[in-house]
Amino acid sequence: MKSPHYQYDAMLQFVTDLGAKVGLPVDRARTQAGVLLEGDLMGHSTHGLALLPGLLSGLESGAIRSSGEPSCIVDKGATIVWDADRLPGTWVLTKAIDEAMGRIDKHPVMTVVMRRMTHIAALGAYLRQATDRGLVISIMNSDPSMRTVVPAGGMEPQLAANPLAFGYPTDGDPVLIDISTSAVANGWVRRWGAEKRKLPGKWLLDDKGNLSDDPAALFGPPAGAMLPLGGVDLGHKGFAMGLIVEVLTAGLSGLGRADNAKGSDGTPVFLQIIDPDGFAGKSVLKRETGWLANACRQSKPRVAGTTVRMPGDTALQSRRQQLETGISFYQSILPDLAKWADKLAVKLPQPMA
Amino acid sequence: MKSPHYQYDAMLQFVTDLGAKVGLPVDRARTQAGVLLEGDLMGHSTHGLALLPGLLSGLESGAIRSSGEPSCIVDKGATIVWDADRLPGTWVLTKAIDEAMGRIDKHPVMTVVMRRMTHIAALGAYLRQATDRGLVISIMNSDPSMRTVVPAGGMEPQLAANPLAFGYPTDGDPVLIDISTSAVANGWVRRWGAEKRKLPGKWLLDDKGNLSDDPAALFGPPAGAMLPLGGVDLGHKGFAMGLIVEVLTAGLSGLGRADNAKGSDGTPVFLQIIDPDGFAGKSVLKRETGWLANACRQSKPRVAGTTVRMPGDTALQSRRQQLETGISFYQSILPDLAKWADKLAVKLPQPMA
Repeated sequence: MKSPHYQYDAMLQFVTDLGAKVGLPVDRARTQAGVLLEGDLMGHSTHGLALLPGLLSGLESGAIRSSGEPSCIVDKGATIVWDADRLPGTWVLTKAIDEAMGRIDKHPVMTVVMRRMTHIAALGAYLRQATDRGLVISIMNSDPSMRTVVPAGGMEPQLAANPLAFGYPTDGDPVLIDISTSAVANGWVRRWGAEKRKLPGKWLLDDKGNLSDDPAALFGPPAGAMLPLGGVDLGHKGFAMGLIVEVLTAGLSGLGRADNAKGSDGTPVFLQIIDPDGFAGKSVLKRETGWLANACRQSKPRVAGTTVRMPGDTALQSRRQQLETGISFYQSILPDLAKWADKLAVKLPQPMA
Repeated sequence: MKSPHYQYDAMLQFVTDLGAKVGLPVDRARTQAGVLLEGDLMGHSTHGLALLPGLLSGLESGAIRSSGEPSCIVDKGATIVWDADRLPGTWVLTKAIDEAMGRIDKHPVMTVVMRRMTHIAALGAYLRQATDRGLVISIMNSDPSMRTVVPAGGMEPQLAANPLAFGYPTDGDPVLIDISTSAVANGWVRRWGAEKRKLPGKWLLDDKGNLSDDPAALFGPPAGAMLPLGGVDLGHKGFAMGLIVEVLTAGLSGLGRADNAKGSDGTPVFLQIIDPDGFAGKSVLKRETGWLANACRQSKPRVAGTTVRMPGDTALQSRRQQLETGISFYQSILPDLAKWADKLAVKLPQPMA
């Protein structure tokens, strides 16, 4: 059975309309729609429109603030701290990227830290805004209200999946990195659980500290935990990466786990944009990164018949394909949205023929 | 058999004298000695005095330049590029940290990229210079002449171990991270090979692409490769981390793999120092980071009788202990240095009673 495909512009309008109907100004609703759809285009199906029902609920209840501006806590030119106070994370982060790029000629390393952000969806969805202009971009996010990942050697979770995204240009396609610092991320475990499937590896601990590939071990009750990247043997490296994300997000923004943060307090986000022209230069960087990307792609795969891919290759291929032939969504997504379409009297687009 | 211990000051003088005897100005020789010994103090025994014979050979032959200054390629205030042209990496990196910290009041995010650096030894050995002043520090290093780590999905090595170090202050001990982005680093594989031991995990590929825990699989002939952190299942994350190190070092410095770099061209280094006072503030950051560090340390270990440690805890404990009771060195190190002591007529310190 071929899953239905939807025309991008029609979906963008649909998702924008839904946001506007729950009170978001149209420009913000459109930004949010663009970020979410970018997630689906790139194949991050747990972090695209799958998040929209939660965002619409939040906007409707006021848990997500629909109007107002982030307040500026610090502005020292090259460093900025904003308190988003539960404004839509997708819109605030896009605004922060614009602000940083607007100052990049004067400050070749621009760093913006945001606190009390609502969901920023797929971190990888933002990267092209910078790489398309020849810039290097880093985005990190932690969640002080969530404890799902154990420290190396531990069995009680203390961190969250603490994702980091990093994009850089080459003389061809950009390289777009979007990874969690845990072995696996919540969204996947939840989905595999719903599908009654085991994980591809023993990336979980049950509540007794035993290794497990069973999604039920994470959610319990009693709840278990996820291992950091590197697992039992090399988890000190994934744990270290998770801590780096903690200090650059919660530490620099000054609102984190020490404050007994609740889910309603939102999350901190770190953004850094680097202009290679503040260093050896854009064209020089692209030559280096392009050379290495091609060397990797052309190198011999471990499994015959596969190819070595750079981070982002699959996502960019998926994006191009879906812009041309229509976007398809994970099976549960459109039925969930149909309820909202009905409730808010916005017409769900017809699938493409 | 208890291994001999040496008094720190006596060893510092000894190592300084050796450096000076091969032509390094005394202040530079002392900086180099301090960085190397810091490695041994922290327990990084493959990256302390173990490196000294190679450095002395290099200084003697002129492969490492003993005098002159790094040339400044770019200086935009908050961003600097230096060409070290084979000056001692330990001294140039220490100088870069000083330079960055000297400007930190004006530029709360200081980034210095260095190219054509000789060996910088243990990246973790530099971190306390910044964390002792309440600053956050990041150091990365790649080696364009070395290919030992495969891209995810590949079997031909394209990257190197690409280490990254990251230090940050807390309201107690600093957190000191020093990890490779590969599953294992060369020095360890070489040492396990010399000791005829297997690796603790299957972190290597042989030349046919088979998983292996045999050091001989790496060195060959025919040579195999190391896997990125995450191994066969999750190696796309370690590969991504390795690429981040490549772009921030070789990419920003403009001298990397595209230039068909040889070992004699040295390596690029990335340094970034962040002053939390450019964001929510030092005391706020320390409160957050200290809270989390203690939560982790106090949390339940997976293996009864062990404790959960933060990155750097073991190193700092080793450092304090050895400063008090004397430093001990891995078995091959002092015999190798005794030859240099003899040749350069510098007296090897007596072990402590």
